[in-house]
Amino acid sequence: MYFYAMLTISQRGQQMPASPIRKLVPFAETAKKKGIKVYHLNIGQPDIETPKMALDAVRHFDFKVLEYSHSAGNESYRRKLATYYTNLGIDVDYQQIIVTTGGSEAILFGFMSCLDQGDEVIIPEPFYANYNGFATAAGVVVRPLTSYIESGFALPPVSEFEKLITPRTRAIVICNPNNPTGYLYSREEMDTLRDLVIKHDLYLFSDEAYRDFCYSGEHISAMHLKGAEQNVLMMDTISKRYSACGGRIGALVTRNQAVLDTVMKFAQARLSPPSFAQILGEAATELPPDYFDATRAEYLHRRDTLVTRLNKMPGVFCPNPGGAFYAIASLPVDDTDVFCQWLLESFSYKNQTVMLAPAGGFYGTPGLGKKEVRLAYVLNSGDLNKAMDCLEQALQQYPGKTK
Amino acid sequence: MYFYAMLTISQRGQQMPASPIRKLVPFAETAKKKGIKVYHLNIGQPDIETPKMALDAVRHFDFKVLEYSHSAGNESYRRKLATYYTNLGIDVDYQQIIVTTGGSEAILFGFMSCLDQGDEVIIPEPFYANYNGFATAAGVVVRPLTSYIESGFALPPVSEFEKLITPRTRAIVICNPNNPTGYLYSREEMDTLRDLVIKHDLYLFSDEAYRDFCYSGEHISAMHLKGAEQNVLMMDTISKRYSACGGRIGALVTRNQAVLDTVMKFAQARLSPPSFAQILGEAATELPPDYFDATRAEYLHRRDTLVTRLNKMPGVFCPNPGGAFYAIASLPVDDTDVFCQWLLESFSYKNQTVMLAPAGGFYGTPGLGKKEVRLAYVLNSGDLNKAMDCLEQALQQYPGKTK
Repeated sequence: MYFYAMLTISQRGQQMPASPIRKLVPFAETAKKKGIKVYHLNIGQPDIETPKMALDAVRHFDFKVLEYSHSAGNESYRRKLATYYTNLGIDVDYQQIIVTTGGSEAILFGFMSCLDQGDEVIIPEPFYANYNGFATAAGVVVRPLTSYIESGFALPPVSEFEKLITPRTRAIVICNPNNPTGYLYSREEMDTLRDLVIKHDLYLFSDEAYRDFCYSGEHISAMHLKGAEQNVLMMDTISKRYSACGGRIGALVTRNQAVLDTVMKFAQARLSPPSFAQILGEAATELPPDYFDATRAEYLHRRDTLVTRLNKMPGVFCPNPGGAFYAIASLPVDDTDVFCQWLLESFSYKNQTVMLAPAGGFYGTPGLGKKEVRLAYVLNSGDLNKAMDCLEQALQQYPGKTK
Repeated sequence: MYFYAMLTISQRGQQMPASPIRKLVPFAETAKKKGIKVYHLNIGQPDIETPKMALDAVRHFDFKVLEYSHSAGNESYRRKLATYYTNLGIDVDYQQIIVTTGGSEAILFGFMSCLDQGDEVIIPEPFYANYNGFATAAGVVVRPLTSYIESGFALPPVSEFEKLITPRTRAIVICNPNNPTGYLYSREEMDTLRDLVIKHDLYLFSDEAYRDFCYSGEHISAMHLKGAEQNVLMMDTISKRYSACGGRIGALVTRNQAVLDTVMKFAQARLSPPSFAQILGEAATELPPDYFDATRAEYLHRRDTLVTRLNKMPGVFCPNPGGAFYAIASLPVDDTDVFCQWLLESFSYKNQTVMLAPAGGFYGTPGLGKKEVRLAYVLNSGDLNKAMDCLEQALQQYPGKTK
């Protein structure tokens, strides 16, 4: 006689983290219903227009049956992606590229292919919160390694990584330039990571979603690292590069054939990546080399506006990010979870307020980031300045101010 | 001193099954290079045109930024989907629908949310081979329960299900109408499943991708089952309904709020389903009710052509499928893996041959289905007849013929 199972949610499902950014959404909605304008610096949805030529390529498709594509993505697209990477000094063949449903799926497939239930990844924190979600889905344990705002979120020293390495450690995950910190890893830091993963036989998962947005210094891809060819998996996406978040097209790129073969099995199970946005991605590879200049200049202007305003506010500190379109600032408040909710619920200035992401959700270590917020500079400078006016006023009025 | 990990593929990745259908692809490519025309009855890619009005809706989008959609899908689309379901007698609110990246993601999210590593699902076999892939990704154990060609692949008796139920059993998975058998479950069979899942507190995952293609009898959705509202998760897709496989738009539908809340966490981690094909799916909900009549009539004509031809061949038996666009036939050969390869490698008739899917890949029990093939009637009747001419000739010539 068996004791039968109850109708329950899986442990994995219960452990799956809710989005730390989205929990403030109901408060923002209530503020908007009261007629308050909310400046959204809380999410990485760029306002930059998707390139018209790439959207037009989708408008002008000429097939009559919307068929499955190849599980690895259309060969014509993969060949053009290989050229795009080669132009960045990343010498890969199209067969080393598997097109994924967003960068998200590339991360999930990487975890699934290289790590088993209970295996560990080391991730410098603060980190992109959804890594927790993919790790939970794959049963993988995240070991956060703290980087600090005082040093601008530079890579922690090798000795700190080595303290976290156990027999279950399989990989290090980096995001470069970084979401949420905007930090751009130097050549020396990348070389350090190369030596570390080679020494300890670890994979290096490199999320390079923001590669095209670097402001201070050159982008060193993990795919550039000589000698670590078998260790490196690069996760990429067109979401931010071409402001095409809704297309859900990314890529997993590696020279490790065993990993490619394994990822292909996961790719075949889900049949194919979306067809329409592959057309968009393929067209976008034909954009002129100066396409990013204007976008990069715009983000640079926004970054300077944001960081200058923040550092002028008493008690606020924001290191200058080298890439992406995020910054983390520390605020003179007791708890940014409470403060960010208060901004939406109890504050307005000229009938406006600002929505920020409390940074606690980007740390794996409980209790860290309580005085920090992440700001996405995805609005034009005029709106950014108005948002900073709100924050400046709010910090003067907030009852939980600490200094 | 630790023994450090090697750079290895995960056990999960190693166990991940390769697609049983795709392993014959190189032989088909070689045949084509020799100038032989190959009739593809091996895959479920319909040749039916995607509705022009739905493709036109994509052509005429008017946004300038391809933004993330809501993680659960656009509300406007979900509301129209709710109406589509309500018109089928499935009374659901739009908040009980989560739009997924294909039906594939709906199945994965269902497994992830309801089952833990080592938990078990019972699936009548033969079954859609990719269920194995999603189960492996989620660490779930598939317990196949054999249905038999002699009874047309009817639902196995309750006593057989109960023999397989253990303390780790969490769910039963059905596909209705069925891929690969084309079997359409009767009201009595659906009521049996309802009683079984209620009695044993099991989830019922119901893949209804082919709902709109039923030829002999009414489609009984698992969502119709009174009293099992908390047990049922329906997996749906627009891939086959509107011949829109490349769009990668599906849905997970359930009235179980705890499951919805959990699935939403997985949905948020991957940000959003593809935007373009949501436009297509939303437009398609406006198709006139008689839209499916022509498509259904076309498939019915093909089915009758295929099944009639098959059953006229000596030693061949093909039960008449009630829905979808698949049939399984038993052939008078030693091993359909060998036979299907021989068809591509060593046979042609009037410079043509046919590609079939060996049925072994659709069984979870090793050794079953060795004399069976799956045929997808996704070609017009003229081509189907030519494909059947090839098969008829081939069975006369094949050295491994058994009777």
